Amino acid sequence: MFQDEQEKNTITIPKSKTQNEKQGVNFMTIQDLFGQPLRAVNIGLEGFAESLKSQGAEVLHVDWRPPLAGYVELTHTKDGVDIDLANVEAVNRIRSGRPMLAGMGIAREVIPGFDERMILHAGPPITWERMCGPQRGAVMGAVVYEGWAESYEQAAEMAAAGEITFDPCHHHHTVGPMAGIVSPSMPVFIVENATAGADSEHPTVTYGTQNEGLGRVLRYGAYGDDVLKRLKWMEETLYPTLKAALQETGPIDLRSIIAQALHMGDEVHNRNRAATSLFIRQIAPALLQRRITKQSAEEVLRFIDSNDHFFLNLSMAAIKAMLEPAEGIEGCTLVTVMARNGTDFGIRVAGMPDRWFTAPAPVVEGLWLPGYTAADANPDIGDSSITETGGVGGFAMAAAPAIVRFVGGTSSLALQVTQEMYQITAGEHEQFTVPVLNFRGTPLGIDVRKVMQTGILPFINTGIAHKEPGVGMVGAGLVRAPKQCFEEAFKQITQMNE
Amino acid sequence: MFQDEQEKNTITIPKSKTQNEKQGVNFMTIQDLFGQPLRAVNIGLEGFAESLKSQGAEVLHVDWRPPLAGYVELTHTKDGVDIDLANVEAVNRIRSGRPMLAGMGIAREVIPGFDERMILHAGPPITWERMCGPQRGAVMGAVVYEGWAESYEQAAEMAAAGEITFDPCHHHHTVGPMAGIVSPSMPVFIVENATAGADSEHPTVTYGTQNEGLGRVLRYGAYGDDVLKRLKWMEETLYPTLKAALQETGPIDLRSIIAQALHMGDEVHNRNRAATSLFIRQIAPALLQRRITKQSAEEVLRFIDSNDHFFLNLSMAAIKAMLEPAEGIEGCTLVTVMARNGTDFGIRVAGMPDRWFTAPAPVVEGLWLPGYTAADANPDIGDSSITETGGVGGFAMAAAPAIVRFVGGTSSLALQVTQEMYQITAGEHEQFTVPVLNFRGTPLGIDVRKVMQTGILPFINTGIAHKEPGVGMVGAGLVRAPKQCFEEAFKQITQMNE
Repeated sequence: MFQDEQEKNTITIPKSKTQNEKQGVNFMTIQDLFGQPLRAVNIGLEGFAESLKSQGAEVLHVDWRPPLAGYVELTHTKDGVDIDLANVEAVNRIRSGRPMLAGMGIAREVIPGFDERMILHAGPPITWERMCGPQRGAVMGAVVYEGWAESYEQAAEMAAAGEITFDPCHHHHTVGPMAGIVSPSMPVFIVENATAGADSEHPTVTYGTQNEGLGRVLRYGAYGDDVLKRLKWMEETLYPTLKAALQETGPIDLRSIIAQALHMGDEVHNRNRAATSLFIRQIAPALLQRRITKQSAEEVLRFIDSNDHFFLNLSMAAIKAMLEPAEGIEGCTLVTVMARNGTDFGIRVAGMPDRWFTAPAPVVEGLWLPGYTAADANPDIGDSSITETGGVGGFAMAAAPAIVRFVGGTSSLALQVTQEMYQITAGEHEQFTVPVLNFRGTPLGIDVRKVMQTGILPFINTGIAHKEPGVGMVGAGLVRAPKQCFEEAFKQITQMNE
Repeated sequence: MFQDEQEKNTITIPKSKTQNEKQGVNFMTIQDLFGQPLRAVNIGLEGFAESLKSQGAEVLHVDWRPPLAGYVELTHTKDGVDIDLANVEAVNRIRSGRPMLAGMGIAREVIPGFDERMILHAGPPITWERMCGPQRGAVMGAVVYEGWAESYEQAAEMAAAGEITFDPCHHHHTVGPMAGIVSPSMPVFIVENATAGADSEHPTVTYGTQNEGLGRVLRYGAYGDDVLKRLKWMEETLYPTLKAALQETGPIDLRSIIAQALHMGDEVHNRNRAATSLFIRQIAPALLQRRITKQSAEEVLRFIDSNDHFFLNLSMAAIKAMLEPAEGIEGCTLVTVMARNGTDFGIRVAGMPDRWFTAPAPVVEGLWLPGYTAADANPDIGDSSITETGGVGGFAMAAAPAIVRFVGGTSSLALQVTQEMYQITAGEHEQFTVPVLNFRGTPLGIDVRKVMQTGILPFINTGIAHKEPGVGMVGAGLVRAPKQCFEEAFKQITQMNE
């Protein structure tokens, strides 16, 4: 009556309803899957086509993805370090990480190196002059929110006059979705990686703001009374309430929530409905303590319930906390940061963690909110691609087929993307698994060498901001990291090891 | 960069990691899926093998599921009613149903026909003499809970002496999981089908108790101070608190929760983690009203949070409310009830809704809790197979691959089961869809004729109770409905139409 072990790697596909009903067939056969005589198409390396041919199959070989420009085989550094072993060490550090939500604080008080009149932003370093519309918009909103300017125009003038210091979130163990603006008064979550001890040479504490929701919100470049009023409420009600609740619950295991959410249709980048639900379940009873008024508790519950993306910022900080211990491993060719400021896309590599390799931010293929089109879209933006860097998000899309209703594509695409990403990663997660792939771990640790060799670029799903300051969200979609980042990084790796 | 529409019905499967990494191949080919030269195996009707052969494929025909004994083609009733049309009408009534959680009440006050000293039970009608161990255990617990006896022994004597009236839940628009015991003082949820209006000739209000959790609980046949203490708390704290919260929220749309949960890895029979989470999100803010103390609210939140199966009883009552409007459609051959009392498995058919067709309850193939084996298991029990009857549960397992960790099998099995069930159903849900099957509606409306023709028996996933009274849960597993029920029902259908 039940399937035996032998069959555990097969998935059958329904035929069209009419055929099923007319013929009463029990299961599809492989031939029927494509409704035509079968021929294998080999996509990739020719050696594999040979192996198929040797089994008697008719094979069409399509050599459609040559290695990227500058690829050479590279197994050891010039000092004799085995790169594969360095990468294994990195994968082990990352996947053994255990990010815990330890508490909350005000950005300027808890984030290291937060200077006065400093604003953190998503992506690689950038000046006001080169900054894209939505990031400018979010800066203008933040400057007024901080009370440094009376108007948004004045805020822009201050920024243009060099009166604001801009620094990437990633330079401060922080991650910010979309524009990724963090200003000194903003409350932030504090995430500690419980695996990497206090004596680790690598920072193991990361930070992220509270998620505002979708639509007209600061991180999508919107500003205005509505946006600032919400930020103020988040500072004055949401923050102290959640902080008090966290003191009651104790540290919350974010790795456990992410692991469960991957079994509940989330990939914890653009789908966080399950993770947000599980977070509510953990926090809700702690909102009933004496120090919290019923009104605050109710407002907080309704706010989080109204925003299925609430967990995104926690997911990002958690994955960042898992990745950081890999930074600095000698010879390691794994990517530890992918981040975009809406103008540039930048990556950082574990073996030389202080360098950015950048390229123009790519255009996102999107689904549009009513009234918007591709012409309204800013290029790819945000630190949220830290999720893909850490083996979830787009890399875990097979766990979240329903996400295609939000970011576009088909549920088949969701499955294929995850499978494709195994080709450019050095390992697999142990805690983060995909039920539909028979609980295989998600692909973890983007190896610059494998990206170069296969020409397969990391896949990201993402929100899309309006290109003008002050508007907000216009859609969500799918994008690949630009190949130039990897070519530049690889060039540097090979030069170092000549 | 993205998959085109043509590929939307394909799912590719990862190869073993070693192969992937060595060869750098992008996607699997079909040949590789089975790792050997391809031959189609036709399972089922020979006509389909012919159609494959005509496409040049090598086909091995396996005629392993002949029609069940007594099968004849049947298209019209003797009065000329087109059975297909009757079934389409039934499918339309079921899938347009909109079950709302309207409120709560005490069983004896709200459930129609609840006589004094009556106890409702799962499955078809049964006497104390033939009742299985866990159902007897649950009756004994309920009799003491009601205060009708001082001891469990005395309770059993009363039952044996005929002092208790037993009636199936299904005779009272009620559904109960496992033993399915409902005694007069128990609080119940009240579910109204908002589509079927008050003027409908079919009852559109259904009832279900509050879920106790897993382990040593009444519905698994356990009794004792711990079990009764929990039931008392559920009556005195959980019930009034939830009732007050529901007055605040207004009716809760259970169809919407089920639809969302199917996109979050639940099949709402043995996996209800997402649905329970969504229910908590809806109810939690309403617990903060003035009438409810913080202590009650916190106890209720912690209780529901501790039990991912909490939504099961709501899912069952919701699906029952969707199915009832199909009862009584002339000529309709769809199953509207599958229910088990642990001794007998019974089905009811829409065209003759007052008849039960029964067979011995089958043995469940299970995963066992520590310390238990198959030797401890009672045969299949409970009204929860109403979920499969209504197109979710086992029928929606493709939406819930992670469930195999609880009920056994592989995630491939979960996909295959749903696809197989399309062969015996008359239609598909519109609101309830499976992302991984490209959002296809779940298979809905088991047609007795199709079960007879194909020999494919409805698939159910289920909890397993200890066979002795007083113990409780021992595992969970997978089972098929027994064929005799369908043979008997079909015999009756053909006799009526000769």
